[in-house]
Amino acid sequence: MSEPMERAQTRIVWQDKAWRLRVDRLRLPNGRQVEQGIIEHPGAVVLVPLRMVGNEPEVLMLRQYRPALEAAVLELPAGTRGWDEDWLVCAQRELREETGFRARSFTPLGQIWPAPGVSNELMALYLATDLEADPLPHDADELLEVDPMLLRELVTLARDGGIQDAKSVVAILRAAHYLQMT
Amino acid sequence: MSEPMERAQTRIVWQDKAWRLRVDRLRLPNGRQVEQGIIEHPGAVVLVPLRMVGNEPEVLMLRQYRPALEAAVLELPAGTRGWDEDWLVCAQRELREETGFRARSFTPLGQIWPAPGVSNELMALYLATDLEADPLPHDADELLEVDPMLLRELVTLARDGGIQDAKSVVAILRAAHYLQMT
Repeated sequence: MSEPMERAQTRIVWQDKAWRLRVDRLRLPNGRQVEQGIIEHPGAVVLVPLRMVGNEPEVLMLRQYRPALEAAVLELPAGTRGWDEDWLVCAQRELREETGFRARSFTPLGQIWPAPGVSNELMALYLATDLEADPLPHDADELLEVDPMLLRELVTLARDGGIQDAKSVVAILRAAHYLQMT
Repeated sequence: MSEPMERAQTRIVWQDKAWRLRVDRLRLPNGRQVEQGIIEHPGAVVLVPLRMVGNEPEVLMLRQYRPALEAAVLELPAGTRGWDEDWLVCAQRELREETGFRARSFTPLGQIWPAPGVSNELMALYLATDLEADPLPHDADELLEVDPMLLRELVTLARDGGIQDAKSVVAILRAAHYLQMT
């Protein structure tokens, strides 16, 4: 693979507390210059909060209204990390805010880049188990409700396209594989 | 779930040929206003270009330099749709640009939202088969090389975290399931 491109100029175009848009002017190997927008992001956590219902593992899914899609999305609890926040502190906080439960155990399910073409966001995936009620109030701009679903059913939805949220598809299939269900 | 938020004001902050950043001022149910950045995106295709090597299905993966990550990423061929471009026309074009092959057959593997918290991007996933050499020159700002790998090996990497690109994890696991390998 050729050498990466040279960054001729860079500026921040917009930011809020969560992330910012940086615009780079790049010099291509052929000498031409192009502008490229890059989202600078502190990263996020994605949680698979799991509890047993009889012999069946069940996951606390969310139905969350997403303004970008103008629709409610079936997805796992997840949230943006503060720029200096510890990953597991963030995981416990988001779990309590979004589901009302804390977990005694977090098992890493690897990491993913949701959109490496435009963003440096890294998502850390965790299986969250040994749940106990311990709610925190959630952000005023988040509209969501908790919807517990069987992991077995979620695996089918992840595979056949019934779940469209990418991070949730990855985390559900990795959790099911970790639990030796696939 | 409560009613969605009211959009009090909206403006475009930055754009290039591929996507644009819209910033909305939202009125929350509690009366407070917040600003929210939303990426308006025309959508993208993700391809699993598959050929048989003896009895073993093999996938044309890419090693692509991603300026956002300042790293080369192992990922599937993929690309942004033109705002008015037909999805399958886009799929064939990106496949030819990035791998040098065209496919006679595209099988849908469902759709995903890579980042519904910040973007309305929808990705359409396709299994691409019956490949034949028919290259198109690729974009000058793309640095990539083709790396054929066994699908069996990719399934392991998708599950254990060895592949970090979210769209590639989803498309590989859906392709393997479609081919009854999992």
